[in-house]
Amino acid sequence: MQERSEPEAARGPRRGRGRRPTAEVRADVLDAAGALLLERGMGGFTIEAVAERAGVSKTTIYKWWPSKGALALDGYFHAVESVLAFPDSDDVEADLTAQLRAFVRILTGTPAGRVIAELIGQAQTDPELSAALLERYSDPRRELAVRRMRRAQTEGQLRPDVDPEVLVDQLWGACYHRLLMPSLPLVEEFATSLVANLLRGVRA
Amino acid sequence: MQERSEPEAARGPRRGRGRRPTAEVRADVLDAAGALLLERGMGGFTIEAVAERAGVSKTTIYKWWPSKGALALDGYFHAVESVLAFPDSDDVEADLTAQLRAFVRILTGTPAGRVIAELIGQAQTDPELSAALLERYSDPRRELAVRRMRRAQTEGQLRPDVDPEVLVDQLWGACYHRLLMPSLPLVEEFATSLVANLLRGVRA
Repeated sequence: MQERSEPEAARGPRRGRGRRPTAEVRADVLDAAGALLLERGMGGFTIEAVAERAGVSKTTIYKWWPSKGALALDGYFHAVESVLAFPDSDDVEADLTAQLRAFVRILTGTPAGRVIAELIGQAQTDPELSAALLERYSDPRRELAVRRMRRAQTEGQLRPDVDPEVLVDQLWGACYHRLLMPSLPLVEEFATSLVANLLRGVRA
Repeated sequence: MQERSEPEAARGPRRGRGRRPTAEVRADVLDAAGALLLERGMGGFTIEAVAERAGVSKTTIYKWWPSKGALALDGYFHAVESVLAFPDSDDVEADLTAQLRAFVRILTGTPAGRVIAELIGQAQTDPELSAALLERYSDPRRELAVRRMRRAQTEGQLRPDVDPEVLVDQLWGACYHRLLMPSLPLVEEFATSLVANLLRGVRA
């Protein structure tokens, strides 16, 4: 990210079309898209602004991303991926709690919460964005969570007859519920309770 | 609802302004709004169509409802209220499961699912609709669920230290998650698993 603050002129040949390896250009675009989203939210997010920040042409961006929504979703995923990585201790309750608390912090402490809420909202009447939301955000994030919980099943920490996909809806889905219909505040203590309720059971 | 199929002329004096009791007119409007929503979804929902169906003027509707969204939310709540009433047996797991399965059937077997998804979606960028969504739908539905679960706490079926508000997010919120981000299908068996996971706990 540091080279983003260099004067444009200093980049010289890096701006020329076709001179940088594809993977590097792609990573620059995702860095730029993610940073722009977290700074400005969807209101300030345009293909033009991402192109300028990444030092690429709009044509380059449209080669890989069919729409502003698709680019926003990939940029969003890219920006939050490392913060939302699962800790990898032997205590599944501690690991899930730590990840969910980090998730709540991102949703409430940065513009990320409004960004993803607006994308989910718009997806309800935009079939193309809805498909992108599943493919570029919901499915891959689910997979990361399910993988961590399947390991806990293998290690004998979660019951083998429980479907980890359902737990995704009862943990992260519960947070989206408070984000999208904020009758009650989305706070870190809530995340802790979500995990505790499921692991310990709520029957008296 | 039956009088809706009478010829307009047969209603005679009932259509005159101020001749019917307020509560009756209000109920007619809610009946009409709910029925229209479940038949046509938000795409065919207009104040004009509700007014015509209820045999009232648009002015009458605007006296009580500030916007189409507010009327849709009240009509929706009114239409699903009886189907989503909680069974009242001594078995909280059976009662919650039956209610959640009915909720899933409404969301997936009628246009209700698309209606509420579109309203939640639009509320993300419409502060007035967002406020109406909480006041007219989310808050009162939460209250009904919390009341049933507090009774289960009093009767010693749910642990007294568990917050029923969090359970709302882990049961109904989990269904909204699958409705709004349909990576996986929203089916009745899912509803059964939601309750079982929480009541029994998922730790091995």
